[in-house]
Amino acid sequence: MNEITQILNFIVEVEKLKSVIRKTRPVGLRRYENSAEHSWHVCLSSLILKDYANDPVDINQVIKMLLIHDLGEIDADDKIIYSSETVENKLNEESGIRRIFAILPQGQADQYLSLWHEFEAGETPESKYARAIDRVPPLLHNLHDNGHSWKKHNIPKEKVFSLNRRRISEGSHQLWDAIEVRLIKAVKDGLLN
Amino acid sequence: MNEITQILNFIVEVEKLKSVIRKTRPVGLRRYENSAEHSWHVCLSSLILKDYANDPVDINQVIKMLLIHDLGEIDADDKIIYSSETVENKLNEESGIRRIFAILPQGQADQYLSLWHEFEAGETPESKYARAIDRVPPLLHNLHDNGHSWKKHNIPKEKVFSLNRRRISEGSHQLWDAIEVRLIKAVKDGLLN
Repeated sequence: MNEITQILNFIVEVEKLKSVIRKTRPVGLRRYENSAEHSWHVCLSSLILKDYANDPVDINQVIKMLLIHDLGEIDADDKIIYSSETVENKLNEESGIRRIFAILPQGQADQYLSLWHEFEAGETPESKYARAIDRVPPLLHNLHDNGHSWKKHNIPKEKVFSLNRRRISEGSHQLWDAIEVRLIKAVKDGLLN
Repeated sequence: MNEITQILNFIVEVEKLKSVIRKTRPVGLRRYENSAEHSWHVCLSSLILKDYANDPVDINQVIKMLLIHDLGEIDADDKIIYSSETVENKLNEESGIRRIFAILPQGQADQYLSLWHEFEAGETPESKYARAIDRVPPLLHNLHDNGHSWKKHNIPKEKVFSLNRRRISEGSHQLWDAIEVRLIKAVKDGLLN
């Protein structure tokens, strides 16, 4: 099979991310978000928020990471963040990501697998910032949707504050400050208990 | 209003791209695609196909262009490519894109408006390549969906060949060669008349 055919097969395979359903609803919509449109949203968000990263970041590396960060969900499905960070789920996602990248020519497969590992490890300035941005739209969804997903999944405010404080402030203190004000108001308004 | 608040407002506003419905269905799905998930798909496709661009391209510029290329549709709606290139529709999209970028801090607004104009003009190697990639997933959708959108909108094969030959081969001759073979087969198989 020639390489361009392999790549076109990959383009068709990753369509499946459009049917991976997440746990929050886009602002103004009654349906749940899918992981493909989420991926676009976080890529664009990372671009326009880049000046707020704690450390200087290579924004192109951040965007590439966010373009592929959820592809493992095609096989592993989306799990709510507050219970997704289990060894079993991470192994399922890794096995999924390996299967999908194996559709690509070898050199590309290795390169994107390494990018996915960088995101998951969250140790570089780029992956810390990317992981911070990944949290922003779902919080905005809850804030604009009467805390729908927090309430539906019984997520206590302590968990929402602790996970997001850690994740977002590792990438951007300024962004966490802006979000924290909104979360405090959400508690006061009864959206988050 | 501080700048981070302006940016968070923009992030919420562009959610609306998730409810702009396109004319083709993602492979394997019965629902139509929306412009947000399409934007993700073309960004990722541009990345993995970059070695096939006719001229060397700054892939980061290409991805940025594709992240924002459809935002004008939030106000103007999606139009099928075979009848979308009218002066009226382009003016509607431009007015939409100006309204949306005006939510951002001034410096960013100018920068992204200029990026959108670069995409629309299609004169730089980056915009030629981005515009070529933008055509690929909808063609793959039709090829995997029994020519659904071509048939539904009565698009004759001459139009499909001429528009896509021009658009795709301006960005990547090799990609057009790979797609053309599939379109010829689609005619033979009765998907495209």
